[in-house]
Amino acid sequence: MDFFEVVHSQRSIRQYKPDPVPDEMIWQIIEAATRAPSGSNLQPWIWWVIKDERMRQIISKAVSARMASTEAREQRLRDVEAMADTSRRTMMVKATKFIEDIAVAPVFIIPCLVGVTSPVSDPRSLLAGSSIYGAVQNLMLAARALGLGTVLTTFNSFMESTLHEELQLPPDVVPTSIIPVGYPDGQKFGPTTRKPVETVTYWDEWGSVLPR
Amino acid sequence: MDFFEVVHSQRSIRQYKPDPVPDEMIWQIIEAATRAPSGSNLQPWIWWVIKDERMRQIISKAVSARMASTEAREQRLRDVEAMADTSRRTMMVKATKFIEDIAVAPVFIIPCLVGVTSPVSDPRSLLAGSSIYGAVQNLMLAARALGLGTVLTTFNSFMESTLHEELQLPPDVVPTSIIPVGYPDGQKFGPTTRKPVETVTYWDEWGSVLPR
Repeated sequence: MDFFEVVHSQRSIRQYKPDPVPDEMIWQIIEAATRAPSGSNLQPWIWWVIKDERMRQIISKAVSARMASTEAREQRLRDVEAMADTSRRTMMVKATKFIEDIAVAPVFIIPCLVGVTSPVSDPRSLLAGSSIYGAVQNLMLAARALGLGTVLTTFNSFMESTLHEELQLPPDVVPTSIIPVGYPDGQKFGPTTRKPVETVTYWDEWGSVLPR
Repeated sequence: MDFFEVVHSQRSIRQYKPDPVPDEMIWQIIEAATRAPSGSNLQPWIWWVIKDERMRQIISKAVSARMASTEAREQRLRDVEAMADTSRRTMMVKATKFIEDIAVAPVFIIPCLVGVTSPVSDPRSLLAGSSIYGAVQNLMLAARALGLGTVLTTFNSFMESTLHEELQLPPDVVPTSIIPVGYPDGQKFGPTTRKPVETVTYWDEWGSVLPR
């Protein structure tokens, strides 16, 4: 597939077929992930692939429990109210539905930071993200090139204890996202809704919207 | 260009020709950047493009000053000593040379986080990185597809005061990297050196290197 076609048609897939994904395709998208740059080329990552049904159910239940909590419901309500446009509200409704179905995806990939040590480099810092999320993007683009759906979730942010205690993730390893992988069920790839590029680009002086 | 060819031949370019880059190409790579996902599709970014010679010189001098400082020299020595393999030492030497020449690149792009507010979402946190570094990777891949070189630097980490005070970056805006953009001078794209994918992938149980 053409590079720009992949980039312009990548979108978050939230409905998956339960059909298994061949291991070769998983290797291929992780291989693509590892081509991304990282600070000093240290490649501080482990790509944790979860196919096991029991393990996926544990993650799924942690997500559902969180979403059902009063705190999370209130946060979602505030989020939706803050949304000016209908398309974003629709997205939130879809996202909620997706959460209920997350375990349908046959594979989860959890990109983890390893060996990034405080205080020289804090694995919880913005800069640590520069050594992993580019690779995550490569992985998701490669999946799209192969016809596989993904969505970048940060469910890890509220289920670290589940990952460490129930799924035996070592304590010094930092999960950075939880990415379902599978064949899209009905949902089509791209195009996506974005702010016009002219509204998010400044040239030289901050606020200057046109090049000199 | 084929998607996988772009991904597998992207590499950090550290020697640039001073030739100008057409504005249309800059628009095109930023457009590609904005196709990446961000949390709740909020697209919390401004792509700050710096072509102005005086502004690039200010950044360049801040980099040089930092690199010449005793502290930074000692850190580099420690870094190089910690490097087991020759290829990484060579990379460090090249990186030092590159730093001296950084202003040769005709364009710098500084991807900035805007509107990400503490404490709900801390713009200095790892998770904030998930809403910008994927887009940064799209930008660098798109550049490579067009024959333009880039390198992801985190020079911003030590020159925030310069950006805010001398280049009038507003105080609530967080720069996430500084990316030179230009035509490669001599250096060729890909292939790159990476750990074998089998050594950075676990399946189901942490530490399990083969799928079941």
